[in-house]
Amino acid sequence: MGCVWITSQRCLFGNACADPVDTGYSSPAKTFMNTNVDEKLGFIFGRRSIRLYSPAAVSEAAVQKLLEAAMAAPSAAAKDPWRFVVVRNRQTLSAISAALPNGQMIAGAALGIAVCGDLQAAHDQQLSYLLQDCSAAIENLLLCAHLLGLGACWLGVHPREQRVNSLKQILSLPASVVPVACISIGCPAEAKEPRTRFNRDYVHFERW
Amino acid sequence: MGCVWITSQRCLFGNACADPVDTGYSSPAKTFMNTNVDEKLGFIFGRRSIRLYSPAAVSEAAVQKLLEAAMAAPSAAAKDPWRFVVVRNRQTLSAISAALPNGQMIAGAALGIAVCGDLQAAHDQQLSYLLQDCSAAIENLLLCAHLLGLGACWLGVHPREQRVNSLKQILSLPASVVPVACISIGCPAEAKEPRTRFNRDYVHFERW
Repeated sequence: MGCVWITSQRCLFGNACADPVDTGYSSPAKTFMNTNVDEKLGFIFGRRSIRLYSPAAVSEAAVQKLLEAAMAAPSAAAKDPWRFVVVRNRQTLSAISAALPNGQMIAGAALGIAVCGDLQAAHDQQLSYLLQDCSAAIENLLLCAHLLGLGACWLGVHPREQRVNSLKQILSLPASVVPVACISIGCPAEAKEPRTRFNRDYVHFERW
Repeated sequence: MGCVWITSQRCLFGNACADPVDTGYSSPAKTFMNTNVDEKLGFIFGRRSIRLYSPAAVSEAAVQKLLEAAMAAPSAAAKDPWRFVVVRNRQTLSAISAALPNGQMIAGAALGIAVCGDLQAAHDQQLSYLLQDCSAAIENLLLCAHLLGLGACWLGVHPREQRVNSLKQILSLPASVVPVACISIGCPAEAKEPRTRFNRDYVHFERW
């Protein structure tokens, strides 16, 4: 069915969805039908920037899942301009840490993933699409890390020219490849409460 | 605990996490401890671009959740430059549809949400951060829609000058507010299989 039916003819939040479509596959919504909405959405609100990590390792299988989740994001005209450099070498992580003013924690992380975009691959070769596509992929990666019990933090690179140039050099990036951010990843050694920063002032109805 | 312990001293994927931290709150990972990894991640892979909607309504409570999820994304220096215009008026939705070459479906959607960024609010007033922050928020919004059983589609606006100008006019946006994308939302009238577009060629290890 198209919507989440809790009781017959009732959608989540009490919407009466006309003309429901039977999708035939088990959607996450179906899986969670016995949980309440806030519990279902807990993974989104529970994703927080984790900057402290235990020395524990993160498996290759986990890294594979992170990359699969990242590349499940939508991209403009499905051009998928995202590119990923997975870094475990401690010297390289230290070099990245030194290049990022707020990136000290990546030196002690189990790994880092530099999320880059190839401008030649981006829709219409537009930097804007490259940034949008890579950022959607990063958010998926961060949520996946949280779901796997890992901690992660988004470390900004673009548009800071010095950081961009340092990362290009450290990672030997081709000329058309733009480093957007580095994600530090490890087993968390700090805990943060779920939250939203919802602000009513940022919401307008019908027009500004 | 910081990691997901399936059996004593074992993390998801068999990592031996040293020094686990008891977080004291019920994380999504804990909630899902009895489900396998692919099931847990199904919500990420199951989010697809849904362009066909039933005529059913979408409640205000659902819209509130979408906005709370969007504003749970990280933003550069926590500046939260995102702004949202929720549109239900059919004439306005038609006008938006006419302004977006691939946006026909928003005319028939229950609602649209224009995701914009305020350049004056963005970190260092940088367009790059604005785009990154808004895109992370959009991905959260899309995943939330999927979890609620709704269908949604990301309709690109920025950097197309004509689309940006049309949206600014239709929604009476202030000069510093940049429309990044419009999200069409409704009860789905099509179903798509979960997937990733994972591409091994897009992954590099240690350096390019």
